[in-house]
Amino acid sequence: MNPEPDRTPFSGTLVLEARDRISKFVHKTPVLTSSTLDSKAHASVFLKCENFQRTGSFKFRGACNAVASLDDASRARGVVTHSSGNYAQALALAARLHGTPAYVVMPNNSSEIKKQATAGYGASITFCEPTHAARHETAERIRTETGATFLHPFDDPRVFAGQGTACLELIDEVNGLDLILAPVGGGGLLSGTLLAAQHLLPSVQVVGCEPAAADDAARSLQAGHRILDFSPHTIADGLRTPLGEYTFPIIRDRVNDIVLVSEADIISTMRFIWERMKIIIEPSSAVAIAPLLNGTIKANGKRVGVIVSGGNLDLAQFFEQLKALSV
Amino acid sequence: MNPEPDRTPFSGTLVLEARDRISKFVHKTPVLTSSTLDSKAHASVFLKCENFQRTGSFKFRGACNAVASLDDASRARGVVTHSSGNYAQALALAARLHGTPAYVVMPNNSSEIKKQATAGYGASITFCEPTHAARHETAERIRTETGATFLHPFDDPRVFAGQGTACLELIDEVNGLDLILAPVGGGGLLSGTLLAAQHLLPSVQVVGCEPAAADDAARSLQAGHRILDFSPHTIADGLRTPLGEYTFPIIRDRVNDIVLVSEADIISTMRFIWERMKIIIEPSSAVAIAPLLNGTIKANGKRVGVIVSGGNLDLAQFFEQLKALSV
Repeated sequence: MNPEPDRTPFSGTLVLEARDRISKFVHKTPVLTSSTLDSKAHASVFLKCENFQRTGSFKFRGACNAVASLDDASRARGVVTHSSGNYAQALALAARLHGTPAYVVMPNNSSEIKKQATAGYGASITFCEPTHAARHETAERIRTETGATFLHPFDDPRVFAGQGTACLELIDEVNGLDLILAPVGGGGLLSGTLLAAQHLLPSVQVVGCEPAAADDAARSLQAGHRILDFSPHTIADGLRTPLGEYTFPIIRDRVNDIVLVSEADIISTMRFIWERMKIIIEPSSAVAIAPLLNGTIKANGKRVGVIVSGGNLDLAQFFEQLKALSV
Repeated sequence: MNPEPDRTPFSGTLVLEARDRISKFVHKTPVLTSSTLDSKAHASVFLKCENFQRTGSFKFRGACNAVASLDDASRARGVVTHSSGNYAQALALAARLHGTPAYVVMPNNSSEIKKQATAGYGASITFCEPTHAARHETAERIRTETGATFLHPFDDPRVFAGQGTACLELIDEVNGLDLILAPVGGGGLLSGTLLAAQHLLPSVQVVGCEPAAADDAARSLQAGHRILDFSPHTIADGLRTPLGEYTFPIIRDRVNDIVLVSEADIISTMRFIWERMKIIIEPSSAVAIAPLLNGTIKANGKRVGVIVSGGNLDLAQFFEQLKALSV
């Protein structure tokens, strides 16, 4: 691949600016390697461990950059979002660190551990029915009442530029990469990764990894427009979202490929990483490692970076799923 | 506590020598911290993560030092031991790295994952009945037949000196410690930790942490002699062993205290570390963190180092235990 001009209004400098803005708040997460993983992948694999990021996922980077980008008046009024998962905690902590009120709408079937963590970071939580409509309406009502700024979990340049800083660090820490893998759900992490990677390493390949049971990104690229109407049934709860209006064109224009991963391979990969590398990764993270283990991606001899997105999951629930699949 | 003269023939220089011998083979494991852990412990806690050590535990350090200490003729004949667990894998890899044959006697009820890992490191495995007598007899027969050197899992100065190198690294990496905690089973890790810590930091307190359901070390210190006849019923499978002939006097003369930990606290601590720090630790490791969480050790404001011994466990089996205890 030749160096490419930016085809969208967004460039890697957005990510560099985000890094300056958030560096004093985020953990510079470690890059871990494993000789067992390398020998199975026939490659040199570098895991950028955002499971060790504050609040347990890369979402904190995006939330932090978005809050830090607000002007003083907006910051005083606060921020609002809806999330059942990692972004709720991430925005809650990012807001607290900036002295900003955070209003988080959570569906009332969110897991206890995520409710507690979000409350623990000091957010005002409003519960709603677990429907798309109820989440939007409740957040919109709070926005109108409080004057808080709505911050989307991924489809906002401030958010995905912040998320791309994980990839900047990975490239800084590893001496040369041929290929970078990132999971794709709403596409924020993949968009930020693409902007960062192609800015610093124009010849690197970037591949998005998606559950086969939530393959809307792959189908959207084939169709040439966003597929919004689909029913994801994947254990990778972070990847059930359709691509966004901002993230779709970035991915369409820049990504080298999207590969699909079965549920069984997500779970066996997660278990392999837990047992051999002794780190907890969530299913969404396993999606970006599995193609190296099951041979979907032939990485023979290459230097491969993987954005390990997070480590938040309900352990008891996970083991029920593991048993159900007899993995 | 004042600086103490060595009361035993063993001194911290043994550990320094071991470090020179094994440094090119071992991983320099990371020291991790967590603001959530600190706030629960009311202390600054530094986890020395031997769960990231090669073969998944500190046992590799001791095995590596023991094999490296052999003369050429002995090394050519090989090494033999009996182990159902972490030491089997550790010795297998240490031997392979030194081009030495390894003969490992494993009870036939050892977990599949540990059998596979030990075989994967190239050891010759002989299975025996799961009794103390059968293990000893089988190892002794192999020793006689092959001329291999028997290397005890912990009660050998070469082994526990090597194990103490984890504490040397911890002290190097952290700027000042008031208290160091280590789990105690056979006492190898605690002995090596005591030798290292008191050599470099004469005023540091060192406390051993033991399952209440396998409290032979605490009772041995009270009795003034080794308690050998007891029935441990603890989930912390690495800590079911009595103290050794070498390790007992070192611990008796040097340790500041032994504290006991309940099974429920072992499991809730393990779960806390998994969920909040995203690292897999085994039950034996949780034993040395639990006293900071349940208030047994009042560490208010202190700087506390913890030797996290390892991360090897059968995930499915662990979750059965977790469910049985309803934690």
